[in-house]
Amino acid sequence: MAVLHHSLDFILFSPVDSASTVPSLLSIFHEQEMTETVHDTKGHGYLATLVGKHGRLALLRVHSHGMVTIDLQCYQEDSVAEVDNLLNALEKKLKALLSGNIKRFKRLPALIRGAEVDRYWPTSDDRLIEYDIDQVLYEEDSAYQNIQILHSKQYGNILVLNGDINLADSDTAYTHAIMGSGKESYTGKEVLILGGGDGGILAEVVKQKPKMITMLEIDQKVIDGCKTHMRKTCGDVLDNLTGDCYQILVEDCVPVLKKYVQEGRMFDYVINDLTAVPISTEPEDSMWEFLRLILDLSIKVLHPSGKYFTQGNGVNMTDALTLYEEQLEKLSCPVGFSKEVVCVPSYLELYPFKSCFYCLFS
Amino acid sequence: MAVLHHSLDFILFSPVDSASTVPSLLSIFHEQEMTETVHDTKGHGYLATLVGKHGRLALLRVHSHGMVTIDLQCYQEDSVAEVDNLLNALEKKLKALLSGNIKRFKRLPALIRGAEVDRYWPTSDDRLIEYDIDQVLYEEDSAYQNIQILHSKQYGNILVLNGDINLADSDTAYTHAIMGSGKESYTGKEVLILGGGDGGILAEVVKQKPKMITMLEIDQKVIDGCKTHMRKTCGDVLDNLTGDCYQILVEDCVPVLKKYVQEGRMFDYVINDLTAVPISTEPEDSMWEFLRLILDLSIKVLHPSGKYFTQGNGVNMTDALTLYEEQLEKLSCPVGFSKEVVCVPSYLELYPFKSCFYCLFS
Repeated sequence: MAVLHHSLDFILFSPVDSASTVPSLLSIFHEQEMTETVHDTKGHGYLATLVGKHGRLALLRVHSHGMVTIDLQCYQEDSVAEVDNLLNALEKKLKALLSGNIKRFKRLPALIRGAEVDRYWPTSDDRLIEYDIDQVLYEEDSAYQNIQILHSKQYGNILVLNGDINLADSDTAYTHAIMGSGKESYTGKEVLILGGGDGGILAEVVKQKPKMITMLEIDQKVIDGCKTHMRKTCGDVLDNLTGDCYQILVEDCVPVLKKYVQEGRMFDYVINDLTAVPISTEPEDSMWEFLRLILDLSIKVLHPSGKYFTQGNGVNMTDALTLYEEQLEKLSCPVGFSKEVVCVPSYLELYPFKSCFYCLFS
Repeated sequence: MAVLHHSLDFILFSPVDSASTVPSLLSIFHEQEMTETVHDTKGHGYLATLVGKHGRLALLRVHSHGMVTIDLQCYQEDSVAEVDNLLNALEKKLKALLSGNIKRFKRLPALIRGAEVDRYWPTSDDRLIEYDIDQVLYEEDSAYQNIQILHSKQYGNILVLNGDINLADSDTAYTHAIMGSGKESYTGKEVLILGGGDGGILAEVVKQKPKMITMLEIDQKVIDGCKTHMRKTCGDVLDNLTGDCYQILVEDCVPVLKKYVQEGRMFDYVINDLTAVPISTEPEDSMWEFLRLILDLSIKVLHPSGKYFTQGNGVNMTDALTLYEEQLEKLSCPVGFSKEVVCVPSYLELYPFKSCFYCLFS
């Protein structure tokens, strides 16, 4: 049973006296059988907690610097009409009391806390975003991560790994970009996909009749979930681990890559769909170590004329992107790179919406 | 001075006794010189309000159905380190106390209430979205509306009318779509733009050397703001109200349209950039009346082979879109229409991100 957290915020041109506002607000609360406890704020304005039936709880603050805030928490099963009436009455009364002194009034959509289906997925630069998620289709904890497949009216089914939005049915732009935006031909080529358990890239590359695609995905449970719930993205390519021109190895890519390096195996394309660039800008971070290792191994299995594609990070994470580009200069063999900024619908801001994609070449 | 509203939510597999959780949490608060008032919730779990220095305020609730929530309000000028330490200590303690019983833990980015620059612009389907807005470049109240031009790192400068995001520098996709997605040629044509005070459409149509563009924008203050702060969108077309192949009439479009109808004036294209489709699905709503009136007048000034373009609403507002399409059938002259769904970067969800564009023809 979720808690709905409502807020009414009045930002004022000049401070108001609590004596001129509080009594008539309290009488509105009293009508709803809510009773107050007034707190000593040691000079930080008026503060009352109000408790009522059905677990209703309100905070009334008349801030000393020219702001009035009201919080109302109630349970989701509470009467929507009664709660709305209370909020409307408070809003109306305060608009009348503060008339002429209101710089801004803000009544945000209620924050839904503890709902069965979580709708809040903050961005990489830590902003609050509420998605239109209405259903959890799949949830598993594998040995590697928490896997969720969620349904959104707007984006279709969305794969979420450890709370990070990976790919939605709507995100063909992601797959298109990480394959080189239509400028590459995979026909007759040797292709290596790192990660990619949602099958989106595999399904697209297969269409171009490559010589062979090898996909290294560590997590069988991602494949299982996507096979069932992300068919708009993967089609039928995940139904079998091998097909006419592809094989999926359910393995950690690092030892496999090391083996390929030893064997001298070469690919025309390496597509790294493993993780986005770490958000942290601590170069000592083990995420960065991992990223460098993968990059280094990938370049070693790349034909001299081959290309490596990967996703960068959200365009707002400029420091992380700069650091990423510095990593490229530290590789054991020198590479050039190009980058492209693309809209990925479901990303909004989460590794956001506009995302950098990199193409590396020798 | 804004209030930062932090929340820590623990959703549990099974209810916990407040006696097993509350005392060690209170001691963390006490270390920060916060003192509690415990409230009688009449059977709805444990509730304490805690008040501390610098106007700090916390709510501690152990809900009777298996959830623990903590709210912490503090002022923006408060010590970030101290507040973070307090939140971290509470989170750590609760994770230890509730170990094995935590279904989900959620620590959302703090809600910033009453900031100088407002970052929250809810979507048309009332979801909470925080933008990366860092500056108010222009704010005016005209006779018609509140006009703001805001700066976002991601979207560039954004025109906001009465709290609705209209257009950002990033939104060339909007202009492209409302002009018919590159499938129309405006060269040598008579074009009528309704609204469009940001100059985005005007600037693009002008490039195609039409015979004449007439733009009817009611609000000089929108033009003034955009001329200065939206130059990436409008270029120099707003610097003068007349140009080689255009004239801007700063007038209410309804009487002008009525006059054009009487005069028998005809256009090859009418581009309605006035308002989006009303969100309300009350057909009696005056917004719908207005919309029908504009539609009707527009069709009357349209050459038999002409086309009318307009923006629909967010793809999530299916009821409103259906109602809009019903309005089209009620027009005095019958029209056909096609529609297209397009990504508009800054819209995210606000008349959202994916927006319908309509093309009407006789």
